[in-house]
Amino acid sequence: MSISFQIKHKSKKSKARTGKLITPHGEIDTPAFMPVGTQGSVKTVTPQMLNEIGAQIILCNAYHIYIRPGSDLVKEAGGIHKFIRWDKPILTDSGGFQVYSLADIRKITDEGVEFKSHKDGAKIFFTPEKVVQMQLDIGADIIMPLDECAHYQAPRKVVEDAVIRTTKWEKTAQQYFTDQKAKKQTGHSSLFGIVQGGTHADLRKRSCEEIAALDFPGFGIGGLSVGEPHEEMQAMLEVVADHLPEEKPRHLMGVGYAKDIIESVKRGVDLFDCVIPTRLARHGSFLTMDRFEGLRKAQYEKDFSVLDPKCDCYACRGGFTKAYIRHLLMAREILGYTLLSIHNLRFLMRLMADLRKKIKEGQI
Amino acid sequence: MSISFQIKHKSKKSKARTGKLITPHGEIDTPAFMPVGTQGSVKTVTPQMLNEIGAQIILCNAYHIYIRPGSDLVKEAGGIHKFIRWDKPILTDSGGFQVYSLADIRKITDEGVEFKSHKDGAKIFFTPEKVVQMQLDIGADIIMPLDECAHYQAPRKVVEDAVIRTTKWEKTAQQYFTDQKAKKQTGHSSLFGIVQGGTHADLRKRSCEEIAALDFPGFGIGGLSVGEPHEEMQAMLEVVADHLPEEKPRHLMGVGYAKDIIESVKRGVDLFDCVIPTRLARHGSFLTMDRFEGLRKAQYEKDFSVLDPKCDCYACRGGFTKAYIRHLLMAREILGYTLLSIHNLRFLMRLMADLRKKIKEGQI
Repeated sequence: MSISFQIKHKSKKSKARTGKLITPHGEIDTPAFMPVGTQGSVKTVTPQMLNEIGAQIILCNAYHIYIRPGSDLVKEAGGIHKFIRWDKPILTDSGGFQVYSLADIRKITDEGVEFKSHKDGAKIFFTPEKVVQMQLDIGADIIMPLDECAHYQAPRKVVEDAVIRTTKWEKTAQQYFTDQKAKKQTGHSSLFGIVQGGTHADLRKRSCEEIAALDFPGFGIGGLSVGEPHEEMQAMLEVVADHLPEEKPRHLMGVGYAKDIIESVKRGVDLFDCVIPTRLARHGSFLTMDRFEGLRKAQYEKDFSVLDPKCDCYACRGGFTKAYIRHLLMAREILGYTLLSIHNLRFLMRLMADLRKKIKEGQI
Repeated sequence: MSISFQIKHKSKKSKARTGKLITPHGEIDTPAFMPVGTQGSVKTVTPQMLNEIGAQIILCNAYHIYIRPGSDLVKEAGGIHKFIRWDKPILTDSGGFQVYSLADIRKITDEGVEFKSHKDGAKIFFTPEKVVQMQLDIGADIIMPLDECAHYQAPRKVVEDAVIRTTKWEKTAQQYFTDQKAKKQTGHSSLFGIVQGGTHADLRKRSCEEIAALDFPGFGIGGLSVGEPHEEMQAMLEVVADHLPEEKPRHLMGVGYAKDIIESVKRGVDLFDCVIPTRLARHGSFLTMDRFEGLRKAQYEKDFSVLDPKCDCYACRGGFTKAYIRHLLMAREILGYTLLSIHNLRFLMRLMADLRKKIKEGQI
């Protein structure tokens, strides 16, 4: 079974839409936010908590899982869903971005990228074929091809070369995936495409057109949320919305602040993922519509109110006060990170539900 | 309301007994194990998980809570139950032991102990009265008096002096508690006594007789599990069983391995607490009847079985395999510590339930 996408409501005020993404492990109401479990665990929360939070899909990182515990081990365990005890949909990011941000890159050619593992320095060569195969071994519902993500403010030529190479790699990836599918070796995985192009409108357009021509069932929007101003990101999303097929789902990778999500939904984005709900939690902060707020501040020492009285998460519903969570943070008690992670993830689930409602009711 | 204790079954084969300890926040089936939440959180688990594990009482540490966030803050929050969101019974250890093990002690006199805080070096003077008062502020169901715990292998004279001073301090503590009770200032707290005496049978006997004469509603057994051999500890428990009133509950402080618990139950111990279930979890180990087993070992890399197929904890029932939990440990994912903590705590809850059943059925 492959994935399918149904658009339910289209806004008349913007490019926003609601939809349903149907995967072998369940359905996702879009626009949706995916909690990130980089190494096969959404940090500090259990799968049971993720279910209670309302997560319908999570994202894992194929590069990290390939490095440890190994995609072969996950395959031997019966696949990622069984291994990590999450029976709902999973998307694996290819890890192309991590290769650029974490690893010591030695060489990029049209054949692939040679780099040293961030874990132990071992030399690794990733090809478009290998990146598909390791994700087939891992066995997520949605998998991503190897792409090249140019740094923000990289010279135009570098961004252009990355666009060209990304298209070339994705053609190779799609061919490999199609061959494996013919041999019934793709399990329940579907391969998305990824568009690049930095913040250059013409390169974005070109990448969209080239990748759209490859007929993937959905698309990741890469190379954004890498340091560019909010307005530049939104300008690029306008371009993407105009040049990717309307009927297919679009995943804006690495975006998690409320303001960015709301504006991106208005530009037709269906899927989001980001580490910030759990990362900010470990830094002692909780998400707000504004951005986030640090709970270690002295003003919260005797604040016996919950993080958000309107929130229905375990932390707020359970009556855990700011003063108590702050104490846990000051005492480095892990429960503090868990409660903040639950709250931050639920904050985004509630935001997405609210956006879906507003689109349906014609408010945005 | 004070606590009360009802003995339900007495073994004919040993001094073991089952009972019910009734407190203002609920009943505890004894023999019972208390998970330890030193700083107001049982490390890496939520109150909801503790309920699922079957915990009927937890132990917090008054010294740690006094240091941070402060017993006054907990009082302002409405007491420890409300602050930490645990509405079942709580026992606070006085922290006498922590003063000796963690703090930089400056002076011990009959009036109290002067020491520097392990947190910031601030000078603190604990008197028997102050230690009762700070626990009344915290508001646990069972509170403990200041005692003096001699190091294992301390000269006999040092142990004897500690016994003498402990009795003196506990008289003062009981008088203070009685005065506060007359003023209706003790809330739902009851004050236990603590016996000392190291591994000297005559000093143990003396301490038991002196403390038993003070008519506390229950007794902590201190100064054991501090390095002495298993047999010496058990020999001391024989003495204690013979010299503490049979009808009152006995709490062996700091004991958590299965073998020690089983033998201690046979010698009439009703309550246990220990940090090992959660501490071993953070060290990557799970409890066994033997002692414990490290899960980081290479042999578990591809072990796709659960920790214990007979266990009904969230980790085992949920199908989290040794291979997955090991991966979480290797990747330093907190979920690994949480799953092992849940399993280790549930292991002890199941052990205690099994012991209660065996006593009832006349097997031990």
